[in-house]
Amino acid sequence: MMEIKPYVHTVHYYETDKMQITHHSNYIRFMEEARIDLMEQMGYGFEKMEAEGIVSPVMSVTCNYRKPTAFPDQIVITLHVEELTRLKMRFGYTMTVGGTVVCTATSQHCFLRGGRPIALEEELPEFYGLLKEMTRANGAIDN
Amino acid sequence: MMEIKPYVHTVHYYETDKMQITHHSNYIRFMEEARIDLMEQMGYGFEKMEAEGIVSPVMSVTCNYRKPTAFPDQIVITLHVEELTRLKMRFGYTMTVGGTVVCTATSQHCFLRGGRPIALEEELPEFYGLLKEMTRANGAIDN
Amino acid sequence: MMEIKPYVHTVHYYETDKMQITHHSNYIRFMEEARIDLMEQMGYGFEKMEAEGIVSPVMSVTCNYRKPTAFPDQIVITLHVEELTRLKMRFGYTMTVGGTVVCTATSQHCFLRGGRPIALEEELPEFYGLLKEMTRANGAIDN
Amino acid sequence: MMEIKPYVHTVHYYETDKMQITHHSNYIRFMEEARIDLMEQMGYGFEKMEAEGIVSPVMSVTCNYRKPTAFPDQIVITLHVEELTRLKMRFGYTMTVGGTVVCTATSQHCFLRGGRPIALEEELPEFYGLLKEMTRANGAIDN
Repeated sequence: MMEIKPYVHTVHYYETDKMQITHHSNYIRFMEEARIDLMEQMGYGFEKMEAEGIVSPVMSVTCNYRKPTAFPDQIVITLHVEELTRLKMRFGYTMTVGGTVVCTATSQHCFLRGGRPIALEEELPEFYGLLKEMTRANGAIDN
Repeated sequence: MMEIKPYVHTVHYYETDKMQITHHSNYIRFMEEARIDLMEQMGYGFEKMEAEGIVSPVMSVTCNYRKPTAFPDQIVITLHVEELTRLKMRFGYTMTVGGTVVCTATSQHCFLRGGRPIALEEELPEFYGLLKEMTRANGAIDN
Repeated sequence: MMEIKPYVHTVHYYETDKMQITHHSNYIRFMEEARIDLMEQMGYGFEKMEAEGIVSPVMSVTCNYRKPTAFPDQIVITLHVEELTRLKMRFGYTMTVGGTVVCTATSQHCFLRGGRPIALEEELPEFYGLLKEMTRANGAIDN
Repeated sequence: MMEIKPYVHTVHYYETDKMQITHHSNYIRFMEEARIDLMEQMGYGFEKMEAEGIVSPVMSVTCNYRKPTAFPDQIVITLHVEELTRLKMRFGYTMTVGGTVVCTATSQHCFLRGGRPIALEEELPEFYGLLKEMTRANGAIDN
């Protein structure tokens, strides 16, 4: 199984709010950064997907804020595949600062080509295989 | 029961992304705008809460993206109280454009004074009563 | 000369930073909001321009922060045309809160069709005429 | 004279807009990132300044957009001191992608302690000395 490096987001000053902590909406953006980085590491980065004519919109997100973070905390984000079905997948995210969990989150995605849902297993079998491995390794729900 | 006007957010150009739709992270911000507006309409706006020394951090959010929106769509946001317990509450959000549901969402909150959780029922009984009414009217889970 | 209504931006909670004031980068966004609103009022809103195949990128901005603003201040933004030449125009912005100037700014634009600069005077003479009137009324530099 | 490493900002997907380029407001944020990084490298990072009770608000910015950038461009940002007077300083920024200048910008700052302007030369003479060196090296206006 491939080695994935966690993604690190250093909180920017402009990401804080008047409570002097990271504004909660920004974690949704950190998730996108980490997800794009993961897919890049897997060899299916944005440019490759775009060349394949595939987009992967966000269908839903959940985000649990455990501890506040602040400028200039370094948030370490690890991803795993929580669920992988024929047409959908769900990523799980764990965010830590100095080893303490500050946020857990999920995002659900489908894959579209020309605006129509596609089955990854048929269209990008290799990528599907990698995702499946990340699911099994994780003990998550498998289709 | 008091009459609450829905909140309207007009999508700004800078809220779009390269898929030419509203970036999904922005809906979390629209929720905050609508929530602050609701509390203002209920007579417990940010300034009053601040004067009472009470803050109401976001503990978690969920967001289901049903249909994309785009600049300059007018997103109409209605809120209801989904759950109200001794120390927590959960708002539910329905966002529509031209009558079509584009997004449904929730956010869970506690109330803190001096960094410690407080029971609204004891500290702000009138506000608690208003929230309870909004829960019952809605058929949601009551404490 | 046509009557233009000033644009009002109410500062959102998420637009503040840990200094508990509106983060300075957001004023650039308020300028865009006000500019789009002005062009809409002039009858040359984003949709009309898009239908004409014309885009109007920002070439440069300047922004002078006179007084901090905070959530939930209502910032009143008035625009004028500072300069109008064959291929470029510059808007000037005055932002006030309760009558006090909090920020003055400018933005310079060109107009492109199919990626190539166009002369508004020839392509959209009526719009050019309106802009010219706004320049003269203002005593600004005229081509 | 100390060696300063340029700052690199990789454009995030959520920083693009419907023209499929980096939204122009974000460059103001990249400038803040680069400025904070520079001051950290100089040994006068945010935490040290805060410990000294000093804040350095942005008085004004200018930004010239030379070429559009896009996701996931790596923008290399170099700073220099353009002007250093008793109470104010101005940073200049040059942003490049692959060696091509995409944006030039400036930001002007004062230094406050307890809300009152202070003279860096007297309060933080060592930091002032470093800034002065960066000014001279650059051939910029010196006090």
